[in-house]
Amino acid sequence: GTELLQQERNKSSVDVEQLSNFLFTKDGLARKQRVLEILQNDKVFDKSQNYFAGRVDRFETALARAKKLRQLHIKHNFSQDDKMVANELISEPGPYGLHESMFLITLRDQGTPEQHEVFLRKAEQYKFIGCYAQTELGHGSNVRGLETTATWNSDDKTFTIHSPTLTSSKWWIGSLGRTANHAVVMAQLIVDGKPMGPHPFVVQIRDMESHQPLENIHVGDIGPKFGYNTMDNGYLLFNKVKVPHISMLARFSSVDPKTGKYARPASPSLVYGTLTWVRSTIVMQAGGVLARGVTIATRYCAVRRQFQDRDAPEWQKGENQVMNYTTVQVRLLPLLATTFALHFTGKAMMALYAASQSKMSQDAGKAGGPQRGAGPEETNAGSDLLADLHATSCGLKSLASYTAVEGLEICRRACGGHGYSSFSGIGPWYADYLPTATWEGDNYMLTQQVARYLLKTARSVLKGVDPNTNDTTLILSTFLARQDTGAAFDVLGNDSDIVAAFAWRASFLTFEALKHRDEQKKPWNSLLVDFYRLSRAHSQYMIVKNFYETLQSSSPAQEGMGTETLDIMHKLFRLYALHTLEQEASEFYTSSAVTVRQIQLARANAVMKLLEEIRPHAVRLADAWAFPDWQLDSSLGRYDGKVYEDMFYRASEQNPLNRVTIDPYPDSPTLFKANEAAALKSRL
Amino acid sequence: GTELLQQERNKSSVDVEQLSNFLFTKDGLARKQRVLEILQNDKVFDKSQNYFAGRVDRFETALARAKKLRQLHIKHNFSQDDKMVANELISEPGPYGLHESMFLITLRDQGTPEQHEVFLRKAEQYKFIGCYAQTELGHGSNVRGLETTATWNSDDKTFTIHSPTLTSSKWWIGSLGRTANHAVVMAQLIVDGKPMGPHPFVVQIRDMESHQPLENIHVGDIGPKFGYNTMDNGYLLFNKVKVPHISMLARFSSVDPKTGKYARPASPSLVYGTLTWVRSTIVMQAGGVLARGVTIATRYCAVRRQFQDRDAPEWQKGENQVMNYTTVQVRLLPLLATTFALHFTGKAMMALYAASQSKMSQDAGKAGGPQRGAGPEETNAGSDLLADLHATSCGLKSLASYTAVEGLEICRRACGGHGYSSFSGIGPWYADYLPTATWEGDNYMLTQQVARYLLKTARSVLKGVDPNTNDTTLILSTFLARQDTGAAFDVLGNDSDIVAAFAWRASFLTFEALKHRDEQKKPWNSLLVDFYRLSRAHSQYMIVKNFYETLQSSSPAQEGMGTETLDIMHKLFRLYALHTLEQEASEFYTSSAVTVRQIQLARANAVMKLLEEIRPHAVRLADAWAFPDWQLDSSLGRYDGKVYEDMFYRASEQNPLNRVTIDPYPDSPTLFKANEAAALKSRL
Ligand SMILES: Cc1cc2nc3c(=O)[nH]c(=O)nc-3n(C[C@H](O)[C@H](O)[C@H](O)COP(=O)(O)OP(=O)(O)OC[C@H]3O[C@@H](n4cnc5c(N)ncnc54)[C@H](O)[C@@H]3O)c2cc1C
Ligand SMILES: Cc1cc2nc3c(=O)[nH]c(=O)nc-3n(C[C@H](O)[C@H](O)[C@H](O)COP(=O)(O)OP(=O)(O)OC[C@H]3O[C@@H](n4cnc5c(N)ncnc54)[C@H](O)[C@@H]3O)c2cc1C
Repeated sequence: GTELLQQERNKSSVDVEQLSNFLFTKDGLARKQRVLEILQNDKVFDKSQNYFAGRVDRFETALARAKKLRQLHIKHNFSQDDKMVANELISEPGPYGLHESMFLITLRDQGTPEQHEVFLRKAEQYKFIGCYAQTELGHGSNVRGLETTATWNSDDKTFTIHSPTLTSSKWWIGSLGRTANHAVVMAQLIVDGKPMGPHPFVVQIRDMESHQPLENIHVGDIGPKFGYNTMDNGYLLFNKVKVPHISMLARFSSVDPKTGKYARPASPSLVYGTLTWVRSTIVMQAGGVLARGVTIATRYCAVRRQFQDRDAPEWQKGENQVMNYTTVQVRLLPLLATTFALHFTGKAMMALYAASQSKMSQDAGKAGGPQRGAGPEETNAGSDLLADLHATSCGLKSLASYTAVEGLEICRRACGGHGYSSFSGIGPWYADYLPTATWEGDNYMLTQQVARYLLKTARSVLKGVDPNTNDTTLILSTFLARQDTGAAFDVLGNDSDIVAAFAWRASFLTFEALKHRDEQKKPWNSLLVDFYRLSRAHSQYMIVKNFYETLQSSSPAQEGMGTETLDIMHKLFRLYALHTLEQEASEFYTSSAVTVRQIQLARANAVMKLLEEIRPHAVRLADAWAFPDWQLDSSLGRYDGKVYEDMFYRASEQNPLNRVTIDPYPDSPTLFKANEAAALKSRL
Repeated sequence: GTELLQQERNKSSVDVEQLSNFLFTKDGLARKQRVLEILQNDKVFDKSQNYFAGRVDRFETALARAKKLRQLHIKHNFSQDDKMVANELISEPGPYGLHESMFLITLRDQGTPEQHEVFLRKAEQYKFIGCYAQTELGHGSNVRGLETTATWNSDDKTFTIHSPTLTSSKWWIGSLGRTANHAVVMAQLIVDGKPMGPHPFVVQIRDMESHQPLENIHVGDIGPKFGYNTMDNGYLLFNKVKVPHISMLARFSSVDPKTGKYARPASPSLVYGTLTWVRSTIVMQAGGVLARGVTIATRYCAVRRQFQDRDAPEWQKGENQVMNYTTVQVRLLPLLATTFALHFTGKAMMALYAASQSKMSQDAGKAGGPQRGAGPEETNAGSDLLADLHATSCGLKSLASYTAVEGLEICRRACGGHGYSSFSGIGPWYADYLPTATWEGDNYMLTQQVARYLLKTARSVLKGVDPNTNDTTLILSTFLARQDTGAAFDVLGNDSDIVAAFAWRASFLTFEALKHRDEQKKPWNSLLVDFYRLSRAHSQYMIVKNFYETLQSSSPAQEGMGTETLDIMHKLFRLYALHTLEQEASEFYTSSAVTVRQIQLARANAVMKLLEEIRPHAVRLADAWAFPDWQLDSSLGRYDGKVYEDMFYRASEQNPLNRVTIDPYPDSPTLFKANEAAALKSRL
């Protein structure tokens, strides 16, 4: 393996360091190295039993790690970025996960200064350990349908939190099952018998000493999942539990303790900011998530040899690296291109977001509000930059997370039988990443928001809004203007024409959808499938555009990328774009963005040629993602190519099942003659 | 939940019993019921801890079950079919899995009568417990590349089995890791210093008493996998182990003990039969495998309600069943149609196979031979029925197993958050089924064999072979004859035209590929991507054709299916076909099988209309698959719709993690204050 990877690296002129710096900056890479050393020196982060341990043991280890990480945080004075990098390197969800994200964020964003004193300080000191309890057994996407109630008692100035039905049980709540002693509970506020919609309440749920559930509270872990098993997602039921007035987080809306009057939130759209940020992060991370699988599969497929190429000349001895088979290339290399496409897109979104942050920050906060609603479009149009960014981020979150999910599985399968072993490192990673397709907006439902926004914008364009309002108004106006002239995009000859063709198709689908909705008055529900396609088309346009612009801008050169490396990046751009184009061919025809002949040429010539050109650089391009072996925890993806040695070592030395001797005969009642499996349990 | 499912069942006129009988026959259903009762009465088959237990515990339970099943087999005098049904109901791979399949089959098919006496009898009595050790760490698909050697020693009439390298270690071998005391080992036979290719040897590997590995044998379990963790896939290395002459299975080829002369196999293509059978089984099973996911998701999506339909009239109160959303329908209903399509196709293949079995049985045997080779086409054409069935089964195995794999994941995601819980029953099932895409021929590589066969057949058609030789010659000849006239298939108006359009597209792609290969002399490797598409197109044609013919034939009526039910089945046929057609639209255009307008109409009208028409029957159609709850082991898929009750019960009552009390504070070294998790371990 080692020589094969060395040969691969020798063959290519891609400058790994330049590219890594461009992706992560020098500082970022140095940070990663620094944190890695700290973690690796600590026995509790030893990963060797991760793939073997059962749920209870894994949870125990995860808890030990979470505690240790918190201690290291203090000891080394970690920054927020250091902490994030540490979590990436450890690569498993941990019991403090929701405490450190949604619990703290919600207290911070939605609490008053007084509430910060009472709740936030203690939470920051890990005295209060919390979670964010919104979803219920019966309601997830439809937040307005939540059944847990918080009834205002004007007599004693308290709220009664209650779970009236089985389906009102909080469910899926991260860090709740075993860990949290507090929860932010989203409950229907009831004042004077009138429901006011869901509001956040801070509720203590376990005793601070004994850690036993408080009276009238039923709480526990919801059980094993496809992945994410180091996390204690939990359930929570209240039997008329009284909490004081201060429990309701009151920055945006509140009940006046004296009058019992409810004050409404200042603005109904407070949520754009945070959510846009979270979704842009998901887009950027999707690149890195996928890159793990691509790195592993690329390295392994360069080491794995199988069959001689029978068309090969006699003197070319030895078996072929499977990476040389075009059916392996066509699966892996477009995904390799996709990793960069997603990374650049996420980054560009976050930059746009940061640029307008000052405007947005004042609206930030309040998660879980109307953004989760899915249904007919709102009536008031808002085609400014913020709304554009928000809608765009919905569609991109959906596309990016699916792309990563599906791509990881393609990578795993490309590794043949060995991909199925946990030691491949792809399967467990895939399993933990999967819920990203469901949370922060179900991937199917989010597309309704994108469509709603595009329809709104199309209407305003038809009414003559300034094309330069934002990018969406621009492409829709351009399409309208040229609609009767037709399009002639030189997608195989000109990169900017590729971007234009993607814009054209998205615009075409937008106006088609508008026709169905506004002229033909079709019911919203009958159009959901079209909307899904529309959102996908628009998001693919965004990715192609951002990838193109990143390479076109001056930043690669400024940040030290040489022309050879940049040249390969251009090829990756074309591969991503043309491969997508031919996968979605029929929409490109029907919108007349390209001709049938162009598609045929893209498929049979351009894509195949690009695969051939990129092939020699595959390993180095993967290397640029700069994953330490410790992070990948993969036999197949080792930097040094020692695939077989590592698989063998793990199987024969680290495998608890091999400490068991069985009695194999069906008529004997003995199962295990000897069992020393527990001896390998990792020491904390 | 219960009332909602009851309403669903009341709304539809599909006759569940008729349809079930048609799928499985009355006898089959009665058998299932009988076996189910036996299993359910036995504590060892209690599934309640399956989703919770760690690997070692699960393996122990699986071993207990395997033993018990063997005992029941004897006690109740199970037939082969009873046994199969029992395994389906238990739904987990077990430690005797490979003993009972490949080990016994290989001994039977490849052993001489003398070897049957020595090995097979004992194996049938479970004294020898075996496995089939072909794959190595370094070689799976390329069987000829196996490195394990078996060197003939003429002096003492023995073979020396040896593993010369790390990569020659046997790997992935089911039932080997902890269970087997014997193995069929595929090793390169070496006679007089000359390699003769891989041959099967029966080798004892563990002591019959102590079950410890014999001297110079290193054997163990290969570790945890994405799924299949109740099976002990193993590794095996030999350090010059001598075995007697009788160890080489000698029905087809042998070394003469006196002269040391090697006798070659009678015919090089002995393997068509068994493999065709195995692959046809995979096709048929893929329908049932997918149907589990579809049953679960369909029932759950009928119980799950989320959001009000805002276009709905005011009086229509309550939240919408998510099955009413078209983006849910478009994911689930085509898959529902697919389950039947695959089932009928597999069944038809097996019937064809049975019909020609007498001819084939004489060639049966010898697994793992040249069939796994992938490379340029063989030179001698063979376009008879057998070869057709064989090639067809390769393509169908590939398509069917991918369809089931991908479909299961679509079903899981359609269930939203709860789909991610193990209690959904989809995730664990998916994980166990996954390797079907890799074994019995990697799904990508198999498509090369299909293409090779289609090219060969196209050449013979060009040379004027009788069109009626088999179905492939027929469709290729028809295409050739009409090529210059063009096609005009009324795919939206006429079902038989749909079949013809699929045949046309497959034929078009065949001749395209032939042009590339024979005229343009493109290298084999550069055409693999085209071949993959070609195989897929051909297999989709086969499925459409078999589905159509099953409904067209007299058997539905004969077997008691009423016209109403048959009518829905026709709709399912159209849904499968038209949905596939629009998914693969671009190949249908470019081959001129349909027009752009037809595709647009299929997409926007026909498919959407079919979804609406099939929707009311979804639950009953799933019911017809007749899965007992015990088999599904799913909270979401319960027949009675008690989804939430069951999830809650499993989480709060059966979950070992809830028997643990933790100390949550980062500065405390205590992790678990109390741990009674083990108390729930299932009693055997
Ligand atoms: C691992 C994990 C961790 C989580 N952690 C937390 C947490 O810490 N705190 C918390 O509060 N929640 C958490 N959740 C819950 C998560 O936010 C919800 O599962 C998610 O919002 C999806 O909602 P749902 O499960 O109700 O899906 P549903 O809304 O029930 O979706 C079911 C199906 O119906 C479809 N559907 C529903 N409505 C419509 C519509 N209007 N139009 C079209 N289709 C529709 C969906 O597309 C989907 O296919 C977590 C979930 C998971 C899986
Ligand atoms: C759960 C499980 C159980 C198993 N049980 C057994 C068992 O009991 N006994 C046993 O002997 N084996 C067993 N196997 C092994 C199994 O048969 C092999 O894994 C399978 O044959 C695939 O071979 P491979 O892993 O070598 O894949 P590889 O051949 O290494 O494939 C790797 C990649 O290269 C590609 N590739 C390889 N060659 C070519 C080519 N010529 N052209 C184009 N692409 C190519 C493949 O498509 C794939 O993407 C088991 C495997 C699994 C996962």
